[in-house]
Amino acid sequence: MAGLLKKPVKIALVQLASGSDKAANLKHAREKVLEAASSGAEIVVLPECFNSPYGTQYFPKYAEQLLPSPPSEEQAPSFYALAAMARDAGVFLIGGSIPEREVVGKAGTEEKEKEGKEKEKLYNTSLVFGRKGELLATHRKVHLFDIDIPGGITFMESEVLSPGNKVTIVDFEGYGKVGLGICYDVRFPELAMVAARKGAWGVFYPGAFNTTTGPLHWRLLGQSRAVDNQVYVAMCSPARDESASYRAWGHSLVADPMGKVLGEAGEGEEIIYAELDGAEIEKTRKGIPVSEQRRFEVYPDVSKGAVKYEEDP
Amino acid sequence: MAGLLKKPVKIALVQLASGSDKAANLKHAREKVLEAASSGAEIVVLPECFNSPYGTQYFPKYAEQLLPSPPSEEQAPSFYALAAMARDAGVFLIGGSIPEREVVGKAGTEEKEKEGKEKEKLYNTSLVFGRKGELLATHRKVHLFDIDIPGGITFMESEVLSPGNKVTIVDFEGYGKVGLGICYDVRFPELAMVAARKGAWGVFYPGAFNTTTGPLHWRLLGQSRAVDNQVYVAMCSPARDESASYRAWGHSLVADPMGKVLGEAGEGEEIIYAELDGAEIEKTRKGIPVSEQRRFEVYPDVSKGAVKYEEDP
Repeated sequence: MAGLLKKPVKIALVQLASGSDKAANLKHAREKVLEAASSGAEIVVLPECFNSPYGTQYFPKYAEQLLPSPPSEEQAPSFYALAAMARDAGVFLIGGSIPEREVVGKAGTEEKEKEGKEKEKLYNTSLVFGRKGELLATHRKVHLFDIDIPGGITFMESEVLSPGNKVTIVDFEGYGKVGLGICYDVRFPELAMVAARKGAWGVFYPGAFNTTTGPLHWRLLGQSRAVDNQVYVAMCSPARDESASYRAWGHSLVADPMGKVLGEAGEGEEIIYAELDGAEIEKTRKGIPVSEQRRFEVYPDVSKGAVKYEEDP
Repeated sequence: MAGLLKKPVKIALVQLASGSDKAANLKHAREKVLEAASSGAEIVVLPECFNSPYGTQYFPKYAEQLLPSPPSEEQAPSFYALAAMARDAGVFLIGGSIPEREVVGKAGTEEKEKEGKEKEKLYNTSLVFGRKGELLATHRKVHLFDIDIPGGITFMESEVLSPGNKVTIVDFEGYGKVGLGICYDVRFPELAMVAARKGAWGVFYPGAFNTTTGPLHWRLLGQSRAVDNQVYVAMCSPARDESASYRAWGHSLVADPMGKVLGEAGEGEEIIYAELDGAEIEKTRKGIPVSEQRRFEVYPDVSKGAVKYEEDP
């Protein structure tokens, strides 16, 4: 019987160094994805906001219109660049995230009047492509990053972004299902719990923690999502740019179902590779069978009931 | 406005060395609880199975009948010893855990026929007492410790124990509410999630991890329950007895709402003290306001709905 992860897979986390030139970022991402593929990676992950600097001031400028899908090439160059990378590299590509623009009301329409002045919404959105360059899933960041740590960091994504409204699970044909979250989503145990209980063998988080919360929580959160759910967890950060307004923590990492960190980057540009094996999940779950021991007569199962989730394709 | 933890409190985790002599264990626990109180501790915690060796072979012999409550002195010496410790020390006492016997069918009764040969059930039970020696709460371990790690450890509590059926929250008058779990309960995020969302400022786990899972997961689980729920977490282990069939990990620890470990024991007998301050909870929640950012329209709130929980008194 095949397990959750149907066959061993090599993954690559591209801790990409990005700048302010979107075209250059896309070109550089492409080089790195092709490099990862040539090293044998079958699933490649890019970081959050890989095509732009990270900051609320940048989102409107870099945002792309993804709907209706497929989008126009002019309005969504990153969409087509990612599709081409996945196809040309022949990999499953978790395309980090990009700022997305959604037009929610058109001039003169009823919608516009209903929505008032609001003409567009922005999201922090991850696009996942298959090996033929086909779009497999779209995840809009569910939990917006609004924090305010005196002497540390203040950031308010919600000033410009709207949140996504679903748990995202994507089926990588031949390998099985994975869950998807973006950065701050990792602080909310529910997304990983739902994904794992719906049959995911791993949860992937493109994310850009910072130099305040990164050293405190990045690794801890990755390991704990892995251990609590007995799945692989991969977190992919941008490389740190000391000159940027937002300095990413880096330290992209992969944790196995026992919480062991299989590989962890430093702060600079780097590709982290890891060989994942479903037998490790089964061994872990056989040894410590929490998935059979949960007491849903004492507390509800968060993967049941009112959960909105989407499996693609 | 008072916060969840209404005033600063000093807690003590007694990493007790126990042996096979129950009376000696109770006497020794009393000395340590009095010592902790004389050092200013207002909440004192004992470890799992502090009155006996830990092992399925020991549970029937050491078990005490706690129901109907109050139990008889003859059938429940640990109950009365704990009540006296709490009263004489003038502390809130989380009395680790003891094996409990419940008589579920009496000879010749209908119940007996219905239950077949079963005449009693055993539980792993924590008793919590107030400063006047009054029983505040009873928690029966909800998740029984059944694990089988080849080359590591095999243990099957369910061979002799029955599980508890509720989440336990206890109100320490003047301080506020805490959640309670026993050892393996910590692997299930829901108990801490429910307790924190119902207003607990801390979650306490008397627990005896072992030398296989202890180094892998004990600290990680403590820190992650603290960070995910932004509460204090305290885990109190027995001291390691190298001659015992079950060798406890030790390393009793306290984590603050940011996941910082405020104190951690070694392997031997030791008392760990920590000063807890509700302002730390508020500061953490103000800085990283996850408790206001959860998306219960996307996934259910595990603290709502079918949850069975009990607030005492």
